[in-house]
Amino acid sequence: MTDSVKRGLRDHLLLHFGQHAKLRDGEYPLVIDRAEGVHVIDTDGRRYLDALSCLFCAQLGYSYGDEFAEAATAQLKRLPFNTNWNTAHPPAIELAERLAGLAPDGINRAFFTSGGSEAVESAWKIARQYHVANGQPERVKAVARRTAYHGQTLGALALTGIPALKDPFGPPAIDVARVPNTGEGDLEFLLRETEETIIAADPGTIGMLIAEPVQNAGGCFTPPTGYWAGLRELADRYGFLLVADEVITGFGRIGEYFAVPEVVPDMITIAKGLTSAYAPMGAVLVSDRVAEPYFRPGQALSHGITFGGHPLAAAIALRNLEIFERDKILDGVRELAPHLRRRMHELHRLDVVKDVRGDGFFYAAELDLADPAQIKGAIPRRLREVGLIARADDRGAPVVQIAPPLVCEREHLDEIVDKIGNVLGEFLQEH
Amino acid sequence: MTDSVKRGLRDHLLLHFGQHAKLRDGEYPLVIDRAEGVHVIDTDGRRYLDALSCLFCAQLGYSYGDEFAEAATAQLKRLPFNTNWNTAHPPAIELAERLAGLAPDGINRAFFTSGGSEAVESAWKIARQYHVANGQPERVKAVARRTAYHGQTLGALALTGIPALKDPFGPPAIDVARVPNTGEGDLEFLLRETEETIIAADPGTIGMLIAEPVQNAGGCFTPPTGYWAGLRELADRYGFLLVADEVITGFGRIGEYFAVPEVVPDMITIAKGLTSAYAPMGAVLVSDRVAEPYFRPGQALSHGITFGGHPLAAAIALRNLEIFERDKILDGVRELAPHLRRRMHELHRLDVVKDVRGDGFFYAAELDLADPAQIKGAIPRRLREVGLIARADDRGAPVVQIAPPLVCEREHLDEIVDKIGNVLGEFLQEH
Ligand SMILES: Cc1ncc(COP(=O)(O)O)c(C=O)c1O
Ligand SMILES: Cc1ncc(COP(=O)(O)O)c(C=O)c1O
Repeated sequence: MTDSVKRGLRDHLLLHFGQHAKLRDGEYPLVIDRAEGVHVIDTDGRRYLDALSCLFCAQLGYSYGDEFAEAATAQLKRLPFNTNWNTAHPPAIELAERLAGLAPDGINRAFFTSGGSEAVESAWKIARQYHVANGQPERVKAVARRTAYHGQTLGALALTGIPALKDPFGPPAIDVARVPNTGEGDLEFLLRETEETIIAADPGTIGMLIAEPVQNAGGCFTPPTGYWAGLRELADRYGFLLVADEVITGFGRIGEYFAVPEVVPDMITIAKGLTSAYAPMGAVLVSDRVAEPYFRPGQALSHGITFGGHPLAAAIALRNLEIFERDKILDGVRELAPHLRRRMHELHRLDVVKDVRGDGFFYAAELDLADPAQIKGAIPRRLREVGLIARADDRGAPVVQIAPPLVCEREHLDEIVDKIGNVLGEFLQEH
Repeated sequence: MTDSVKRGLRDHLLLHFGQHAKLRDGEYPLVIDRAEGVHVIDTDGRRYLDALSCLFCAQLGYSYGDEFAEAATAQLKRLPFNTNWNTAHPPAIELAERLAGLAPDGINRAFFTSGGSEAVESAWKIARQYHVANGQPERVKAVARRTAYHGQTLGALALTGIPALKDPFGPPAIDVARVPNTGEGDLEFLLRETEETIIAADPGTIGMLIAEPVQNAGGCFTPPTGYWAGLRELADRYGFLLVADEVITGFGRIGEYFAVPEVVPDMITIAKGLTSAYAPMGAVLVSDRVAEPYFRPGQALSHGITFGGHPLAAAIALRNLEIFERDKILDGVRELAPHLRRRMHELHRLDVVKDVRGDGFFYAAELDLADPAQIKGAIPRRLREVGLIARADDRGAPVVQIAPPLVCEREHLDEIVDKIGNVLGEFLQEH
């Protein structure tokens, strides 16, 4: 790491979720300088297999730069910017149409943003106006799951269910009732608890329920069969909207463009994989039913984000979807997912592994640690030392989590699981 | 407009602040297909002088695509993505250092986002944690001006002071006390009213005051001399933070990189002109004093946005700042600003023009209309018909607003003012 990089880190860049005190002790964070294939390379030339796709984003890994540069160049020369503020431009229009074609039947409209929190905020604001337009302004509450992460702007943060992230910011912007994560019990328990919570909150005051098809925070909670059908039924019975937050699960993470099973939600929030992170973009996809009031005379959609639908980001998202088709990215995931599942479940042989959960290219190993703080110390450090980027997390139970780029080959997946197994094995011997 | 563009608009794209009912009547919004210099060109080949810089963003106009494509290509090939989540990468680090060099003394740190609302949310969350860390968790309120626009996510929307935008979304996420816009009275009145509001709200409960150096909403309210010094004094006396929202005024709009006069605020929010809109990006710039608690042991910065500091956006922002230097963009604004001021003030010759306000390349003509609704109908339509994009707005008094690209030449500025004069003149004759 050069002195100028160190100076920049120490004196100028504020890190997200940053632990800046370490900088004062001369402990610098990883600085990634370049990337190729499924590897990132730091400023000292060390290579890491990025088993987390850079926070669940880099579906295609890092070697499609030439193609995206071509798409970017064409767009920057033709129309570098325009908005969706009651005007529009071809790349956003094409992308909206493209996404409508991929989304479940009945979901045909896209409202674009620059990321996931903005997508979740947009879903909430669209839901609120939908209810107001339909004569139900009293639907002011939301339902979300415990430990769920839906983002960081105050609206999205209200839906997020991780107390430590919410504490300094006062009462939540939205009144949110909490329901269990899948994993806390069987189907009957989950739906009963959810319904009881809805009834206790007064069903007529609920605007929407938001949940991830596979919940990331807490460690890859997959739903039991019938769970989403049950949520759909509750939404229909009590008149609120059902929102699938697919910021992580969308675009192939579980082997499909959209992972919500069994039913069609009313809205789907997306970001991350929409561009494979080659540009910042998010969106909320909206069903025709929910969009309908916005087409009534005099009814504006009161919400807007300057850079939403940015032509450069839209052109990159379009290219991303072309590459997904052409290179059969989903087929690759579907083909290797059973292998990854088998390999991840082998980790059960280690005493420290309490549970293995997940689907597609998205897995967590829950650990049984004497001291839960260990998940933030020795384990991630050792993973890095062996050249692997994975997530060691403790927002729920302590977990090691992976979400490899969807272009990983069998050997990459084996390397990931082998390295996690070795690091946990060593850890067991030392503790 | 082709049938496929129409179909996309009708069936797939949700517009920001969209009035979709018009689509059902076959009335399509402007669809911009390409752009060059300071002109945008719609799908039917009609050219418009973009006197609004596409919502105050396109500082360089639209003909720098080649250069930005070169910067984008280099970055997309080397490192298409990485985060600032306790890791970092050279483009974000360099950009943070570069911005520290341009910002007022004592403001040396940058927290990156993908837009303005996220920047404002970040400022609020950083302010809250600053006060909590300093033993003042009771500083939960904010102060902002009437009619001010600070964005749309629920936290930013709470600071926004336009009731129509807030109505459907319930009680604001932050308890905000409102103070006058500059323009409502003289310096003494403004500061006295502001102080009285602060005292009434209980000064010890106030976390920050946010204001634009020249307030956009309501029409280019410039501050009287002494106003920002007065705000700084109030912030210091009562212990809250002073935030300048420079999402519009930053990066040359008023002839300087930062427009806040007289004093150094504690934070500055930026977006739009940071990249001249060639990519989506925002940031909050933070003073060393406000950043200090985040460097204490055990104190994390609890906030993060996946795409914040995106390498592609950072590379484009860096190139933007290089172009600003090399092509002496600020000098151009400073040189032509007196001419634009003179020309805009000539509009006073029209009876319908009640006031002309603004600075730099940022002006509003306030109109005296028999029916205020006219500002949304005939006037913007006529402006478009004569090939001009300007803003006709009624969030405060009815105004026609301009914010031309900073690369406009004298002839462009003359054309803008002449066309506005002609349209208003015709309007006068007809009404
Ligand atoms: C499920 C989910 N929703 C929303 C978000 C927020 O997205 P962003 O960080 O782009 O604002 C995230 C981010 O990790 C997420 O995982
Ligand atoms: C002063 C000001 N602050 C904040 C914002 C919000 O920025 P964005 O639309 O990028 O979220 C705007 C947008 O116009 C603005 O003008």
